Amino acid sequence: MSLENLLLKVKSKNIHVCVIGLGRVGLPLSTVLAVSGLKVSGVDVDQKKLESIRNSQCPFYDPPLQESLEKANQMKNLFVENNLSNIEDVDIIIFTIGTPNVENEVDYTQLYGALEEVGKIDLTNKLIIMRSTLPPQTTEEIVIPFLEDKTGLKAGVDFGIAMCPERILEGQAIKEIYELPEIVGGINSISNKISSELFKIINPNKEILFTSPAGAELAKLFTNIFRYISFALSNEFAIWAERYGLDASTLIKIANHNYSRSNIPIPGFVGGPCLSKDGVFLDNNTTFASIISTAWKLNESIPKHIVNNLKELTGVLFNKKISVLGSAFKSGSDDIRQSPAMKLIEILKSYHAHVLVHDPYVKGTKSIDEALDNPDIVIIATNHKEFKTLIPVLNQCGCKLIYDVWSMFNKNDFPHIPYVKFGEGYLKNIEKN
Amino acid sequence: MSLENLLLKVKSKNIHVCVIGLGRVGLPLSTVLAVSGLKVSGVDVDQKKLESIRNSQCPFYDPPLQESLEKANQMKNLFVENNLSNIEDVDIIIFTIGTPNVENEVDYTQLYGALEEVGKIDLTNKLIIMRSTLPPQTTEEIVIPFLEDKTGLKAGVDFGIAMCPERILEGQAIKEIYELPEIVGGINSISNKISSELFKIINPNKEILFTSPAGAELAKLFTNIFRYISFALSNEFAIWAERYGLDASTLIKIANHNYSRSNIPIPGFVGGPCLSKDGVFLDNNTTFASIISTAWKLNESIPKHIVNNLKELTGVLFNKKISVLGSAFKSGSDDIRQSPAMKLIEILKSYHAHVLVHDPYVKGTKSIDEALDNPDIVIIATNHKEFKTLIPVLNQCGCKLIYDVWSMFNKNDFPHIPYVKFGEGYLKNIEKN
Repeated sequence: MSLENLLLKVKSKNIHVCVIGLGRVGLPLSTVLAVSGLKVSGVDVDQKKLESIRNSQCPFYDPPLQESLEKANQMKNLFVENNLSNIEDVDIIIFTIGTPNVENEVDYTQLYGALEEVGKIDLTNKLIIMRSTLPPQTTEEIVIPFLEDKTGLKAGVDFGIAMCPERILEGQAIKEIYELPEIVGGINSISNKISSELFKIINPNKEILFTSPAGAELAKLFTNIFRYISFALSNEFAIWAERYGLDASTLIKIANHNYSRSNIPIPGFVGGPCLSKDGVFLDNNTTFASIISTAWKLNESIPKHIVNNLKELTGVLFNKKISVLGSAFKSGSDDIRQSPAMKLIEILKSYHAHVLVHDPYVKGTKSIDEALDNPDIVIIATNHKEFKTLIPVLNQCGCKLIYDVWSMFNKNDFPHIPYVKFGEGYLKNIEKN
Repeated sequence: MSLENLLLKVKSKNIHVCVIGLGRVGLPLSTVLAVSGLKVSGVDVDQKKLESIRNSQCPFYDPPLQESLEKANQMKNLFVENNLSNIEDVDIIIFTIGTPNVENEVDYTQLYGALEEVGKIDLTNKLIIMRSTLPPQTTEEIVIPFLEDKTGLKAGVDFGIAMCPERILEGQAIKEIYELPEIVGGINSISNKISSELFKIINPNKEILFTSPAGAELAKLFTNIFRYISFALSNEFAIWAERYGLDASTLIKIANHNYSRSNIPIPGFVGGPCLSKDGVFLDNNTTFASIISTAWKLNESIPKHIVNNLKELTGVLFNKKISVLGSAFKSGSDDIRQSPAMKLIEILKSYHAHVLVHDPYVKGTKSIDEALDNPDIVIIATNHKEFKTLIPVLNQCGCKLIYDVWSMFNKNDFPHIPYVKFGEGYLKNIEKN
């Protein structure tokens, strides 16, 4: 048996894959690999989550994933455990653990926890795939030295290793695992070949883009940071439009219309567990202000900026009843991690406002009827498409201001209620009137 | 006669249009309007330029414009003068004067010069179109009050006025004047209607996007700033890739490949008369660091950064013979205004390097043979596509280093010469060897 043998084994599709971390990256990948006919063992420390997966209940909102999970369980290909030591005869180990930021530094706790466990296994002739988003050189400077030290084996010779970053959009995970090209950054040719064969089991036509481990780490960050900066710039435009008494979202639509050089996003909150942290992976590696750090400052300040706008519009917020529609970080999601809507809610509470939160996706929030029971202010804080149907209810709820962070509505939708969009220069207009 | 009559006159295509400023914006528009059958009078202070236009010689490199100019002159519809007072019976006056930056402030000299002249005309029932890029509210806070004050007339009543920003790409002017949607920011409905009819003479299917004068000013800036920031971010990625010993252009291609959420430009110089100034039109209106100011700092620093890279690679530059290929700010252009290549040349000279510049488009530069006469270093400073054919010549020129700002070539193209791209981590590699 050698790594060449593992390659043949993968080609025969007769392998056992272990996925460490069953979150929004690991679980969809596990189900897709299982549905593709492989034996998959998933590991996660969260017992409740494991129970839920065993019962074919996706632990978060994602209908296509729910379907894929049911199929994987019907095929009896997916097994979940709370400890790697319960799993035997693994061929490929995929790391999908979280790498959050804590105070602008990368938190490697989960990574080291997983490495500790993996280091106890005999890795001879196995392949390690790093799938989590990592700061550049993490695979070469942390993962490989750690595993070599623990196992006494040599990476690339005794075991293979490749960095193959996840690049899925939350909510589109299943579709994109099948369709997206894979970036494969193997430590050597055999690691590349085995990783490539594994992904081609999912989809024989999958495009594979080869690079180095650090190249794969950096390419992933480039993508997310590019999106993050686009969104930040859109918000900077919103601030300028406010200053000039203009309407950013309308002007952005005009600027973009059939003009191939403009693809400016509409202003809104920018956050969530991926975009807001990935920039820090590069930015904490420089001493001076970068575009990333400037963009981060701007995006992170938008909730406070909006509270300041509300105060300008309605006076002090003390004891005001404020309905916040949406707490998830993006439309169609129940994910509130690093959600600017949550930050907005905290700031409003710090001013002693009485905040009622409704989110159709987020468990534990109020019903729409409770949330819209005669509020002073309504804030559209997440662009869930369901909110589009609320125009009649909003018109009847008795509120004195609708503040729309996402430019979801138009002034005409609310003939008798003051309606203000983020990125709209109401202050100037008020001064003029 | 009223503005309604002017509208009818425009519909009948029997009008006389005056274009003030015959630069890279004004001249193409003048020729297109003339070719569309209108009588067009162009005004410019540059007598040499006027002579050149009369002789059907485009004063700058732009083959489609050259063709359009010839046609306009054949049709005898285009007249040029050095003074507005020489022109009679004008219906529509279009401002295409320059609004450069001087020390991060807008230089209104040309604008006020043109306004002074236009203010002497009886503007009754005429239409003014502002076509230059302007800081938001310039039309409403400078142009209109100035003209009302000079003429005693009322904008919107006695004369029409609209801000209709140019959005052409240099080199694509003629094509884009016909095809691009027009943003029309009229002070009132009749100004919008007349402007719209004028543009529909050029192309009856032209899309018209209506907004206010300040909206038009801001929408134009959004577009250019969005591009500028994309390019700046690409250069920030280049700096990070260098730091990690990686290759930015290769990784960006990987990140973009069939991945709809990534459209990252390849690193290179960012400058020229439009992109580098438009951000300042917004940015000088805020006290704190913005994404724009951070991006500007970065883009403006790239020439110096590259000189620093050269010093790291080759030692002091004193008396070194350096061939710089390209001085224009972008490919296929002879425009050296705010060209980072020119800045690079100045910095190299300040280190007492012996700099030989060749640009196939820029008059007065050396021939390729002179420029490549046994240099120490060759720098690809503009991405002219003609340079692609230089591989054999470069391999024979005797240089000791090729530094490629634009990632135009590959290492394999120069088997015996050290070849380094901007955004490539050569320093780390050198340390390792």
